[in-house]
Amino acid sequence: MSTAYQQLTATFLRLSRFGHLSAIAGWDMQTMMPPAGSRVRGEALAELSVLQHEILTDKRTAALLDEAEQASLNDVERANLLEMRRAWQQAALLPASLVEAKSIAGSRCEHAWRQQRPANDWQGFAANLKEVVKLSREEAAMRADANGGSRYDALLDLFEPGMNSAQLDQTFGDLKTWLPDLLQRVQEKQAQQPIDFPLGPFAVEGQRQLGLAVMKQLGFDFNAGRLDVSAHPFCGGVPEDVRITTRYSENEFLSALMGVIHETGHARYEQNLPKQWPGQPVALARSTAIHESQSLFMEMQLGRSAPFLQLILPQIKAQLGDQPALDADNYIRLTQRVKSSLIRVDADEVSYPAHVILRYEIERALIEGEIEVDDIPAMWDEKMMAYLNLDTRGNYRDGCMQDIHWTDGAFGYFPTYTLGAMYAAQLFQAVKRALPQLDSLIQSGDLQPIFDWLQQNIWQHGSRFSTQQLMVNATGEPLNPHWFRQHLETRYLGA
Amino acid sequence: MSTAYQQLTATFLRLSRFGHLSAIAGWDMQTMMPPAGSRVRGEALAELSVLQHEILTDKRTAALLDEAEQASLNDVERANLLEMRRAWQQAALLPASLVEAKSIAGSRCEHAWRQQRPANDWQGFAANLKEVVKLSREEAAMRADANGGSRYDALLDLFEPGMNSAQLDQTFGDLKTWLPDLLQRVQEKQAQQPIDFPLGPFAVEGQRQLGLAVMKQLGFDFNAGRLDVSAHPFCGGVPEDVRITTRYSENEFLSALMGVIHETGHARYEQNLPKQWPGQPVALARSTAIHESQSLFMEMQLGRSAPFLQLILPQIKAQLGDQPALDADNYIRLTQRVKSSLIRVDADEVSYPAHVILRYEIERALIEGEIEVDDIPAMWDEKMMAYLNLDTRGNYRDGCMQDIHWTDGAFGYFPTYTLGAMYAAQLFQAVKRALPQLDSLIQSGDLQPIFDWLQQNIWQHGSRFSTQQLMVNATGEPLNPHWFRQHLETRYLGA
Ligand SMILES: [Zn+2]
Ligand SMILES: [Zn+2]
Repeated sequence: MSTAYQQLTATFLRLSRFGHLSAIAGWDMQTMMPPAGSRVRGEALAELSVLQHEILTDKRTAALLDEAEQASLNDVERANLLEMRRAWQQAALLPASLVEAKSIAGSRCEHAWRQQRPANDWQGFAANLKEVVKLSREEAAMRADANGGSRYDALLDLFEPGMNSAQLDQTFGDLKTWLPDLLQRVQEKQAQQPIDFPLGPFAVEGQRQLGLAVMKQLGFDFNAGRLDVSAHPFCGGVPEDVRITTRYSENEFLSALMGVIHETGHARYEQNLPKQWPGQPVALARSTAIHESQSLFMEMQLGRSAPFLQLILPQIKAQLGDQPALDADNYIRLTQRVKSSLIRVDADEVSYPAHVILRYEIERALIEGEIEVDDIPAMWDEKMMAYLNLDTRGNYRDGCMQDIHWTDGAFGYFPTYTLGAMYAAQLFQAVKRALPQLDSLIQSGDLQPIFDWLQQNIWQHGSRFSTQQLMVNATGEPLNPHWFRQHLETRYLGA
Repeated sequence: MSTAYQQLTATFLRLSRFGHLSAIAGWDMQTMMPPAGSRVRGEALAELSVLQHEILTDKRTAALLDEAEQASLNDVERANLLEMRRAWQQAALLPASLVEAKSIAGSRCEHAWRQQRPANDWQGFAANLKEVVKLSREEAAMRADANGGSRYDALLDLFEPGMNSAQLDQTFGDLKTWLPDLLQRVQEKQAQQPIDFPLGPFAVEGQRQLGLAVMKQLGFDFNAGRLDVSAHPFCGGVPEDVRITTRYSENEFLSALMGVIHETGHARYEQNLPKQWPGQPVALARSTAIHESQSLFMEMQLGRSAPFLQLILPQIKAQLGDQPALDADNYIRLTQRVKSSLIRVDADEVSYPAHVILRYEIERALIEGEIEVDDIPAMWDEKMMAYLNLDTRGNYRDGCMQDIHWTDGAFGYFPTYTLGAMYAAQLFQAVKRALPQLDSLIQSGDLQPIFDWLQQNIWQHGSRFSTQQLMVNATGEPLNPHWFRQHLETRYLGA
């Protein structure tokens, strides 16, 4: 007779197998699926999601959780049980009808958005988004009622357990006191430096080969993953089979290259999650922000550093040909170029937090019921002007319709980007302390000590520790935005 | 309160959604998945398969079937219910222990066969195959006891409902009276015609573009499907999103091209199945042989006809360049070349039925208990000599070990290839009667009347009629092998 805990591990292993199918079908939807597959795919994924929800919220699961919590468990089992309880509560709170309605409304909104965004069709988009917001508010209210805290906090907790809007208000509030000024000073400084832009066209196949070469340099395991193309780059799949994507433009190769480095950061975390607890929640990535810290560690801390740029410059020239703009100094200026722009995903790391804070403030107000969908464009315009000094009026396509997140109700996600950037800066600082010769290691291509440090301090732990404990263990302190500010000032205003 | 029939349609819609995920994950496994994903993908698909089996064999399903059969239903509902009962009985009849034992023995035999075949290791293979045959005999006995008919008939019925070995004996017996002689006469005639082989290399991208162009010509809906690459070409996915594959060799382009035409035949059937009964068995393809008739209609009847070859020759030259071997007459000889060979999958349409009849006779005797696994090689050698005049003694690799079908117990499948070829000939003959200007329509690229005929007579009906009724409605008579013989004699010996 197996114990309650053992029965739970069997249930979560079964759930992880259905999660596997969902992950692959979801990846396929973004990379491979022809348009006519959309409706039935959405229905199939919704059906699976209902099933997962049923299994998780089965009465027996609740009873087993109660029973296992009374049992004698070791630390890992205890951490696993905590994550099981979290997963159960997240699912059990919502009625199946709401889960299904959210899934269908999200699929519909996202699918239509693919046409509506290029057509700048805010009215069409808003109609679908209202349904998504309505259902997300219902969800938030139910979660907040059960756990305390605000409605928005309840959604934030889905992506970033342990974080809340009070701490975000403080952290982002601090950023708002110095970021716009820093942004202006950096742009003024850079305005005095000449910069040459590489001239295309850059063949897609060459860019793809370059991306694959850099993934290899960064330790991506091609035996357990792939690189493909999607409209909105992401890292999907399962730890044994990690699917990352990028998108190519023939006019410009840096976005795709930096996107590949970013997703490779996500992928290495996934590929190196602990294997000894198959299908268990404790073996999953700690949180969305920690996940983003791994991608931004690769992209921003490592990938845009001068020694890394010098390391990969020969590969760039080998795949795309040489030209004066690929002179090392100019190339470093290119990849460290700061310029306020409309599009979040194209933003540099200095202006990026402004994009995030703006979205955080809008989505929090939306979920808390302080504004309605129809209010979004005006609020967007106002904040873009205040934080980034940009006029977005009437330009929905490159304004409030630019992101996929809200289309399927992922409210509470955006803050994790900037939390991730701050964690990444703090982790890189700790790596610097651990590896005093870091710059020369990077420039010589010996990145293994960095990966070993990440493996030792982040990857191998899965969800064994809370985010805060993980950061304290790895760096000696909880989240400290000081390191992010210091990183930006050092890189962009000089030592 | 919904009726029993309505509840059944909901169950089968749900099953079809899980089937969708299984189809896409299965396609991905063959086309996209990196090696390390294999174990967890297998586990995820097995978990889904257990779930589908549980839903189908749930006690409530049986009770609902009984109840619905007493209800007043229209013709389509009645046909749907018949297919539901078939699906239920196929799943519910076998004890779980036998299903599991079959699955394990099949996996083991197939897995070992991948090494044993190249090693020509008949003894090793036979040991595993004996277990598969033993379990398949048990399955056949149970199915035969429940449904009447012989044991082999019970397995044949899984692929080709309504067919039995008495009819196959008669049909294939007739073929055996004229096929070996025809094969010899065709080869003698062709030996006197000079033939040039196109010289490669043929770039894969050019072949791919050619395949896409021909798919377009054949009406493949790219809004609802894709072309990709896999080691073993197949047609997968779901009707709204049909995935076909091929494989390319730079030395030779005809195999890939004809493979694409073949799979496009399967795909057009899938893409044009009825849409008004979503997720219902009556909306699925009629049978394995009718499916094959659609692929062979495209590949053999249409695709290798002189007017079609002339239609696509300019596209071939546009993608692969011109050369003397692409002269129209030579090219027609190439694609209509007949040559007895050891390997079924490489066989031309004249010798193919000999490969099938041989396998049919062996597998039927095996399932009926008239021979044992150890008797297979001698029987294979004798029949290869009698039907194809080829000596296979000692060459198990290219003899009785060449196919994957028996390794996991798919006895009863082989006959559907030749039934499909005969149905295709009969259907094409009916199209000729309906469209007197057929050759000039084809040569001018106006294929729509042909597709309209198939849509009208085959595709739109799904499983609404029995195979025999479908053929009678479409052609005025049940299966009549005369048309296949006439087709071969006309094409290969001249009018
Ligand atoms: Zn990311
Ligand atoms: Zn076929």
